[in-house]
Amino acid sequence: MLNTPIITLTSDFGLKDSFAGLMKGVILGINPDAKIVDITHNIHRHNIFEAAQVLSMSYRYFPPTTIHIAVVDPGVGSNRRPLLVVTEDHYFIGPDNGIFTAIFESQKSNFFKVYHLTASHYFLPMRGLTFHGRDIFAPAAAWLSKGVDSHKMGDPVTDYVTVELPMPLISPGNVTGQIVSIDAFGNAISNIRLENLEPLGGIDAKDRFAVTYQNERLPFVSYYAENSTGGLSAIINSFGQLELYVYQRSAAEERKISIGDPVSVQTISG
Amino acid sequence: MLNTPIITLTSDFGLKDSFAGLMKGVILGINPDAKIVDITHNIHRHNIFEAAQVLSMSYRYFPPTTIHIAVVDPGVGSNRRPLLVVTEDHYFIGPDNGIFTAIFESQKSNFFKVYHLTASHYFLPMRGLTFHGRDIFAPAAAWLSKGVDSHKMGDPVTDYVTVELPMPLISPGNVTGQIVSIDAFGNAISNIRLENLEPLGGIDAKDRFAVTYQNERLPFVSYYAENSTGGLSAIINSFGQLELYVYQRSAAEERKISIGDPVSVQTISG
Amino acid sequence: MLNTPIITLTSDFGLKDSFAGLMKGVILGINPDAKIVDITHNIHRHNIFEAAQVLSMSYRYFPPTTIHIAVVDPGVGSNRRPLLVVTEDHYFIGPDNGIFTAIFESQKSNFFKVYHLTASHYFLPMRGLTFHGRDIFAPAAAWLSKGVDSHKMGDPVTDYVTVELPMPLISPGNVTGQIVSIDAFGNAISNIRLENLEPLGGIDAKDRFAVTYQNERLPFVSYYAENSTGGLSAIINSFGQLELYVYQRSAAEERKISIGDPVSVQTISG
Repeated sequence: MLNTPIITLTSDFGLKDSFAGLMKGVILGINPDAKIVDITHNIHRHNIFEAAQVLSMSYRYFPPTTIHIAVVDPGVGSNRRPLLVVTEDHYFIGPDNGIFTAIFESQKSNFFKVYHLTASHYFLPMRGLTFHGRDIFAPAAAWLSKGVDSHKMGDPVTDYVTVELPMPLISPGNVTGQIVSIDAFGNAISNIRLENLEPLGGIDAKDRFAVTYQNERLPFVSYYAENSTGGLSAIINSFGQLELYVYQRSAAEERKISIGDPVSVQTISG
Repeated sequence: MLNTPIITLTSDFGLKDSFAGLMKGVILGINPDAKIVDITHNIHRHNIFEAAQVLSMSYRYFPPTTIHIAVVDPGVGSNRRPLLVVTEDHYFIGPDNGIFTAIFESQKSNFFKVYHLTASHYFLPMRGLTFHGRDIFAPAAAWLSKGVDSHKMGDPVTDYVTVELPMPLISPGNVTGQIVSIDAFGNAISNIRLENLEPLGGIDAKDRFAVTYQNERLPFVSYYAENSTGGLSAIINSFGQLELYVYQRSAAEERKISIGDPVSVQTISG
Repeated sequence: MLNTPIITLTSDFGLKDSFAGLMKGVILGINPDAKIVDITHNIHRHNIFEAAQVLSMSYRYFPPTTIHIAVVDPGVGSNRRPLLVVTEDHYFIGPDNGIFTAIFESQKSNFFKVYHLTASHYFLPMRGLTFHGRDIFAPAAAWLSKGVDSHKMGDPVTDYVTVELPMPLISPGNVTGQIVSIDAFGNAISNIRLENLEPLGGIDAKDRFAVTYQNERLPFVSYYAENSTGGLSAIINSFGQLELYVYQRSAAEERKISIGDPVSVQTISG
């Protein structure tokens, strides 16, 4: 049994319906000691890419042995498989539709295993074809949190589904990425990560970087209030991602920034 | 004392204000071991019917002895009574305004009792006339979760208020119901339940059913992806309700479906 | 170690992103026994005044020794300090930007102390300049909840920042305040508090009060259903604030009430 059974939930359920609450009821019915934390239920409907990104930048802030349930699942009830992903530190449970792509790609350890959840005695006895979050993922996570061995819950698979997550293009002196999400503050987050700037000399060389969005070179600052003029600026955010913002305002609204817009970082001679 | 004191919250408070958080503070002040789960706080303002339906399809996914607080309470502070409803498995606490109608109707057991909550030493000492969720329901639930006997909390009543929940009309070979809610995915949920289809031969006979909405006969499928053409389809959802959907889109928006719209199921000769 | 380590969260993060969830992950990684309660994450972006008011009217409904984290923090990463506020009953952790103004003003006890959080071994080891909620406030709160002494977490300060919260003007026979918030029901809440009516004879004299909004004298009732005519009414709400409402409707929408609108209470001869 895990010392501190923590189970997180990430979904596109929204908060209007009782879907997330019912998953919690099912979990607590099996393991009353589980601590359940919502990561978010406001993934855009059916957006597997967004869920994959949110999960990959969130899970590491939870303690080891946390179980992460992800439910963005347009194929529910079809022949898509329910998965349990075991990594060195964490567990992931959800549909085999690519939602765990970033998790798969970051795992090199011997601990890494993916199981097709088949042991139906760990599911709800009465279950339907439209809500596996409640009927399969939640009970499987609850039993896992009570100490059931992963290998008893299903069969190992290696042909799990992945999706193509947008990656930045890196060439000498140039990294070109794109906006991949807009947060609730209207900050526009790119897929350029801190480590992508290493070939350009790393973040310590940022004064020699030109960050360009729509032909405008942006100030590259260290904290939000460093540019409070109202102009668009670039920053490395708390997840190590290059982010565009306008101080205390919505950059996305003011500058009509959209998902997919290109943004680049170049070294300038100087 | 209950082994695992679980308390759920269902309300029309929304998530902007601190109302739900304060109920949790009051509960934890009385019973620090209580596990509190939000079912939803996004019931439409003052919509007792919606809350009654959400509660009746949600509570059974929580373990026995769970205490469910429901607060949709336009009559707060007037002479409407606070109630404690005891069933074989669950407890319900909230206003006497019909919010527990579906619970009342489903109870046949000897355990079923309804109490008018009158023992004010189980309420907050300082209390007002506008927020009984915090001042009466939350503390009463917390004391109940600590093992206080129901009959010490008030007087049994039998003249509790009920509202008329819309029921489907069932005639030979025909069930006519109506849309009673739209979920966050835009799926339109009817009041026709799995068991209402028994007189027509039950769900196994679904290939001989004509599901009709606005003079259109709809495909009747088993899982969402079974019809991914973009047309409107019917399905029995995970709560045993007949539901209309468009795959990965909002049926309600695309087809302008409204609460109250009729939908019918007929047996066809074949 | 606190008997029941409760930690509350108040922020302008919204519920779309994973920010609040990650704070919970960090807290549970340090203190798995912590009970975390959301007060609200829907403070208007960067609105320190609103957060200050919500916090001051909410915290007292939580049990003694509760730790309240507040994160509305446009100055994150700049030289604004992280604070720990210790009062007789409660702890508060957040930025030194005035968010605790109402807490400061209500404290007269010898227990009251404010610390500049400097002991960085109680922060996350990897931390950035844009998300102190996750990197500083959450871990500091978690360590405090495990029993670390406040004075080990930083240096006492007395020059903490305050903001000017709007106060009602009180003259003989007249109290003039303003609308300071609109709740999710559309009720308009003023800064006139129950105790402000004492010079006018107190709430028991309310039949001799004229509550005036936009030159209209409003009925002053005790519970919402007392005036169900659809007209605007005044009430003392469950937080002891004078509130304007329309029964079962949105007063703010119907009467175009805005933050800052004046409202007054006068004694009338009679």
